[in-house]
Amino acid sequence: GGGQTEESPENVLSGFQTSAVLSDSARDKSIFLHGQLAGQEAVMILEKTPIREDSLAELLSGSKLNLEMRNDIYSTYRLQPPPHLNEIKTTVVCPATEKHVKKYQRQESFLVEERGDDYQSITLPYIQEQRFSVQWVYNILEKKAEADRIVYEDPDQTVGFVLLPDFKWDQKQVDDLYLIAISHQRGIKSLRDLTSEHIPLLQNIFQKGKEAILQRYNMPFSKLRVYLHYQPSYYHLHVHFTKLGYEAPGCSVERAHLLTDVIQNLQSDPQYYKTRTLHFPLRADDGLLSRFKDAGRL
Amino acid sequence: GGGQTEESPENVLSGFQTSAVLSDSARDKSIFLHGQLAGQEAVMILEKTPIREDSLAELLSGSKLNLEMRNDIYSTYRLQPPPHLNEIKTTVVCPATEKHVKKYQRQESFLVEERGDDYQSITLPYIQEQRFSVQWVYNILEKKAEADRIVYEDPDQTVGFVLLPDFKWDQKQVDDLYLIAISHQRGIKSLRDLTSEHIPLLQNIFQKGKEAILQRYNMPFSKLRVYLHYQPSYYHLHVHFTKLGYEAPGCSVERAHLLTDVIQNLQSDPQYYKTRTLHFPLRADDGLLSRFKDAGRL
Repeated sequence: GGGQTEESPENVLSGFQTSAVLSDSARDKSIFLHGQLAGQEAVMILEKTPIREDSLAELLSGSKLNLEMRNDIYSTYRLQPPPHLNEIKTTVVCPATEKHVKKYQRQESFLVEERGDDYQSITLPYIQEQRFSVQWVYNILEKKAEADRIVYEDPDQTVGFVLLPDFKWDQKQVDDLYLIAISHQRGIKSLRDLTSEHIPLLQNIFQKGKEAILQRYNMPFSKLRVYLHYQPSYYHLHVHFTKLGYEAPGCSVERAHLLTDVIQNLQSDPQYYKTRTLHFPLRADDGLLSRFKDAGRL
Repeated sequence: GGGQTEESPENVLSGFQTSAVLSDSARDKSIFLHGQLAGQEAVMILEKTPIREDSLAELLSGSKLNLEMRNDIYSTYRLQPPPHLNEIKTTVVCPATEKHVKKYQRQESFLVEERGDDYQSITLPYIQEQRFSVQWVYNILEKKAEADRIVYEDPDQTVGFVLLPDFKWDQKQVDDLYLIAISHQRGIKSLRDLTSEHIPLLQNIFQKGKEAILQRYNMPFSKLRVYLHYQPSYYHLHVHFTKLGYEAPGCSVERAHLLTDVIQNLQSDPQYYKTRTLHFPLRADDGLLSRFKDAGRL
């Protein structure tokens, strides 16, 4: 293991009892499982790690090789690398709630049209009723958790933020660079709450986030995609920084909003995101979708 | 190894000398290499294999586990599975020609910031000089080509359009549905040419395109992503209709613009797309990128 990681005395996951495959992806080499771990409900996510250029020589020389097919100039093999060069990133949520299980269950999505008044009458009441916890976000902002993962911080409580790697990124290579800037300012639930008064906050995140990523990862702005999600997956303002060319989940036009566009839109109309009709996908099992259906808006 | 495969007496790939990484994908867990094998030019493709449900129990019990992070109910680990459960599919082309090498070479992209005046001074002159031919588009509109592929047509020369399947879609299943609506009105090069006078055209494409797709493919609007590209791949107004959930190439936020957003933006500001700063990716070998570099805009 690496210098900063702790080796478990035994494999605590070997006792995981799978009850269902929630989803899987042959393209991503990932699988999402629901099951039980030490008597508690758990969700486990396995995803193979990207192939690293810096370990290629060792990978090729240290592997066992099985020839599968040979035809003219083409051959295919199955390569069995040494375990330490071929890890699987494993995320465990335990104890997991019904909500976690649902979150990872593959579901059809539907595009919802949310007018400004739909937000007030349907979406906002739903968010308030659900009381989605953002305690884990506050833990990060208060250094009660993940403090060692922080890449950059501007501690200002109005325009400041904490920048840290997204869970989806293993930080082994910059090809799938994915960082999240979390606003120190609390109470901004989403894009819908933004007005022109937040422009300094957004500009600060954009500017200092870019600079920190250049310094730390030598990644210039011209290689970055910087955006917000609507709907977000948690209702505390955060901004996504991903590498251009990396097809990060959630970077499609129906969910992502470029930060540069958001800033410009607020500059020309302070109420842009209060009044605008926004479209976004919701999964079939999302409680918010039922509310739109009940309101005759789907 | 499995029953049908042949075990190499030694690892013939251990002598592979990498000269360049042609491309790689952190998402797909693949890497494309150019190099030499036993004195000959070779291309080697490595791609991790999907995680198989039927080997999960053995995978979990037989692996070494390193704890990486723990925060509240969330933990992440690095799992080191037994080699036979965690193979890498390896394809070798040897001897490889120049053509093979080029085929797998990825072009880097750069995000360009185009202000309204950059469009006038850099992009528009470039488009005009290049005289990109759209004759093939006119052939479609005039039924001189692909007439049998047309799914729907509104023949009106101002607000009408032709709807047909994109070449990328084989029409065998609707999971990757992809159609293009091509405007009958000529001379609208891109998003930058749109003003409020085009709102009836855009609304007509949106409305009748959706209806045609519902009729022909039984696909409701709530399953569709309808958008324009900027930059487009050809300078004649066209609109993309793809299935929500299908990660169509070019549906990322840095290139795609939802048609519903375009219409709203033009409704509130007729000059929105003339004045707005737009960001888009350009490939390293794109002539337009050189122009932005020459102008000191990158």
